[in-house]
Amino acid sequence: MKKATLLINCPDKKGIIATVTNFILEKKGNTTYIEQHVDHEVGEFFMRLACEFDHDEEKFALFKKAFNEQIAIPYAMNWEMYNPKKAAKMAIFVSKYDHCLYDILSRHASGELHVKIPLIISNHPDLEAVAKRFNIPFKHIPVTKETKAASEATQLKLLEEYKIDFIVLARYMQIISPGFVDKYRNKIINIHHSFLPAFPGAKPYHSAYKRGVKIIGATSHYVTSDLDEGPIIEQEIVRVSHIHNVQDFILKGRDLEKIVLSKAIQYHLQRKVWVYNNKTVIFS
Amino acid sequence: MKKATLLINCPDKKGIIATVTNFILEKKGNTTYIEQHVDHEVGEFFMRLACEFDHDEEKFALFKKAFNEQIAIPYAMNWEMYNPKKAAKMAIFVSKYDHCLYDILSRHASGELHVKIPLIISNHPDLEAVAKRFNIPFKHIPVTKETKAASEATQLKLLEEYKIDFIVLARYMQIISPGFVDKYRNKIINIHHSFLPAFPGAKPYHSAYKRGVKIIGATSHYVTSDLDEGPIIEQEIVRVSHIHNVQDFILKGRDLEKIVLSKAIQYHLQRKVWVYNNKTVIFS
Amino acid sequence: MKKATLLINCPDKKGIIATVTNFILEKKGNTTYIEQHVDHEVGEFFMRLACEFDHDEEKFALFKKAFNEQIAIPYAMNWEMYNPKKAAKMAIFVSKYDHCLYDILSRHASGELHVKIPLIISNHPDLEAVAKRFNIPFKHIPVTKETKAASEATQLKLLEEYKIDFIVLARYMQIISPGFVDKYRNKIINIHHSFLPAFPGAKPYHSAYKRGVKIIGATSHYVTSDLDEGPIIEQEIVRVSHIHNVQDFILKGRDLEKIVLSKAIQYHLQRKVWVYNNKTVIFS
Amino acid sequence: MKKATLLINCPDKKGIIATVTNFILEKKGNTTYIEQHVDHEVGEFFMRLACEFDHDEEKFALFKKAFNEQIAIPYAMNWEMYNPKKAAKMAIFVSKYDHCLYDILSRHASGELHVKIPLIISNHPDLEAVAKRFNIPFKHIPVTKETKAASEATQLKLLEEYKIDFIVLARYMQIISPGFVDKYRNKIINIHHSFLPAFPGAKPYHSAYKRGVKIIGATSHYVTSDLDEGPIIEQEIVRVSHIHNVQDFILKGRDLEKIVLSKAIQYHLQRKVWVYNNKTVIFS
Repeated sequence: MKKATLLINCPDKKGIIATVTNFILEKKGNTTYIEQHVDHEVGEFFMRLACEFDHDEEKFALFKKAFNEQIAIPYAMNWEMYNPKKAAKMAIFVSKYDHCLYDILSRHASGELHVKIPLIISNHPDLEAVAKRFNIPFKHIPVTKETKAASEATQLKLLEEYKIDFIVLARYMQIISPGFVDKYRNKIINIHHSFLPAFPGAKPYHSAYKRGVKIIGATSHYVTSDLDEGPIIEQEIVRVSHIHNVQDFILKGRDLEKIVLSKAIQYHLQRKVWVYNNKTVIFS
Repeated sequence: MKKATLLINCPDKKGIIATVTNFILEKKGNTTYIEQHVDHEVGEFFMRLACEFDHDEEKFALFKKAFNEQIAIPYAMNWEMYNPKKAAKMAIFVSKYDHCLYDILSRHASGELHVKIPLIISNHPDLEAVAKRFNIPFKHIPVTKETKAASEATQLKLLEEYKIDFIVLARYMQIISPGFVDKYRNKIINIHHSFLPAFPGAKPYHSAYKRGVKIIGATSHYVTSDLDEGPIIEQEIVRVSHIHNVQDFILKGRDLEKIVLSKAIQYHLQRKVWVYNNKTVIFS
Repeated sequence: MKKATLLINCPDKKGIIATVTNFILEKKGNTTYIEQHVDHEVGEFFMRLACEFDHDEEKFALFKKAFNEQIAIPYAMNWEMYNPKKAAKMAIFVSKYDHCLYDILSRHASGELHVKIPLIISNHPDLEAVAKRFNIPFKHIPVTKETKAASEATQLKLLEEYKIDFIVLARYMQIISPGFVDKYRNKIINIHHSFLPAFPGAKPYHSAYKRGVKIIGATSHYVTSDLDEGPIIEQEIVRVSHIHNVQDFILKGRDLEKIVLSKAIQYHLQRKVWVYNNKTVIFS
Repeated sequence: MKKATLLINCPDKKGIIATVTNFILEKKGNTTYIEQHVDHEVGEFFMRLACEFDHDEEKFALFKKAFNEQIAIPYAMNWEMYNPKKAAKMAIFVSKYDHCLYDILSRHASGELHVKIPLIISNHPDLEAVAKRFNIPFKHIPVTKETKAASEATQLKLLEEYKIDFIVLARYMQIISPGFVDKYRNKIINIHHSFLPAFPGAKPYHSAYKRGVKIIGATSHYVTSDLDEGPIIEQEIVRVSHIHNVQDFILKGRDLEKIVLSKAIQYHLQRKVWVYNNKTVIFS
């Protein structure tokens, strides 16, 4: 049996579920799981459907062609048939903080993440030792105001060369330029060390301390050209009190950042995220 | 448009979703939402499907008859078509603690709970004043070892008389006898003041304090004839530390109990709970 | 034995703890509990000290006089000796939402809050029925742009008449004018239905929904003349997802608001809150 | 200035705090922080006191001698003066699961843990590669029923040789014998993958799944000769639902285990844990 996951997004319309599941049944497939969501406010339909077929590759290609013509086009679907066995290729961008990098590489080494990591890129040389521990190629590409355009060109060339599917900014302390972001739309995951939209920008733990909040957070989101305003994938929080100073916030935040970023990577890898209206639908 | 919610549980089989959604489409209905679960270990299928029809009551009855004959019987379905507008009738059993009772009656008065509360039953007279504040009939039925059977008979008669659909034990400090439980299978919701299966039985906060746990909890579950071992509907926890004594545990636990019990009531009212193998499937 | 709680705030200095505890020992008192905090960044010292004495009222007054002259003045202390047995007087301000009011009055009726509630004030008549259920005097004082000054004057007169110690805004939908706030500095507790500083001002649940956050929150704080920027007392959060619409946010938020506001009231009542630099120290 | 942390546990008695802080003041020391707890039920007093002195090593030794004679002996104190700058020596015991080991070694490499790790011991050879990545000596000591006594003797010899202060069982799947436990009383930290006292012993995730709980947890505790019944240091939980199978529980549990174990190690390292009556006092 060949397993496939069908991802569908289209304007909401009567009969979509019946039409799709019936089509699969007719083609001798079996729908094993449906998760579905309708945003009634904007009339948008989302579905993640797991199915299995016993036919061969050729017939499978025919199925996709027929699905496109008979279902996807009439319903104006944004769709994809995704093979859950294939591992995507992820690049990690870092600067000097090592905790998120250690976390991702440890999870990868433990077999938690079904992904290939062909490349780590950094604007500083500091974390090369960490990359070496896990035998991942490390490219040091310094970034200054003057060299930014050239550096990004070098980065983009590497990403192409290594056939990178998506990028994780694991506390990468540089702003990605809009042109770069456009090339990897909804494919750059950032971790911001605050409970967005509170405390965007630099030094959020310092701002949180100054404001006297009782809870701090971390947020993973897709990068857009508006700083820290991209679609939120995951958030988590931890309690603080007057006994904690900024250093304590930073230390507590490290665990938050690791957990939140790794969850976002996992959701992305498992193709459970839909982006629309600068928000996300995350299937479970 | 008439809205209906279809609840289905049956052995897992190829094509169920397509068959059901297609049947609804053929009968001029529209499936607006599906939530579905398969327990692959035991091969059990669950579905909660919201749909709407524009036809009249008579045609609707015909639809149900046809669904039963053509779909439900062949698939060996345990099924129900449920009208989300109809309010169920709930009886509350209490003893002396008033916090859960206040919470339920306040939510009801605020319009949070789509339910009728025709009856409060207690083995003590203490909470009659609370019932009066909210204008709910209060029946004092004392229970002693000797009178237990007679008292339960009186309770059951009242429940029948008031056409009660389900019962909430809001810190009711009596064990319900198996005969009573059988009559309201999966229809008696209890709140236990521990994180089950830890600390079943009497005085769980005292036991938790003695054991030195760092987190305490509360659990709502359907009552079965095995004390505190029924299917769990909801659980919640709160952190404690060495500075808290048993009284603090009890006080902190009050909020937990209220939240957990009211969530369980809400899930039950909205028909989001399936029970099987002494566990629950809770649709969202 | 007479129990007393000593609250001290002063510039941090060598030997404060020893000096204070020694003074109490010399006066035949016993220090039973100390909670202490130093904000090293600003050099501020805070202490909450529970002690007991076996002497009479007259000696106790002498003790306070001696403490003031020999300890408090030399150390430039902001201090108070507080009798934990005395119940403070709290006024509740409401508008139309009833859930926080029900919660506070239920807790009061259950004996959870060691406080007197002589007065509920509202700019709408709607919640008089709730006040009546709990036998609390309810004053309807309408507020319009034109009558605002006069209405606040009426409110202030009532607060004085009833000897109110502090005010709880239990979803009171009016902005308190700076003159009013000045009279009850750090004595007006508000509940804001967002995770401040995110989403200050009106309709925070709508803004949170629009931003696509994965967690919503509620914040209790002392009211200052800057809207939603006063010192935070307590915050709590709950997870949301794409399946929840604004109405779901509002419903989930109700429980948050109740819990967070009641905790803030409890901390305030138990004199566990120190305010400085627009932040709070909350002793446990 | 020399900083020191004074740890005191003794029967509760009038005047302890004043006596201790006054003694420090007399000896030209400054008490900078006190955290204190009294368990009134059993009459036990606990204090963690940070102080600083400007005198030299010799005078410091005299201070300790004087403190012991004049304060500690009269009050029957169990006490210690601890130098927060000195790093303890920790051995890690593992079997085959690598996630906790990666987590501890990554934190250590990041500088989060103020500790030396001279030694990893395992009953399996599998994790040697992980140890090598972080350049920590790894000793493979197989354990079978027959060799258990000899293996433990070898382990104990190594622990002595490396002057190990305390041991962390990072998912070590062997029961430590009572004789071994006695030698490292309150010095062996275990991570158990359930919310104790629920689901002690083997395969707790499987038991939790079978019971249908809505929340799973992890617990770190000191090892005693009663399996999974030692004093609890830290616990944490995560929500689960019917959509999660045992494998999901195990995967979610990994993050819990890492967080809970690392917190317990941190508390232990910072000397914030007191053990009594099979419970812990954890200062903040």
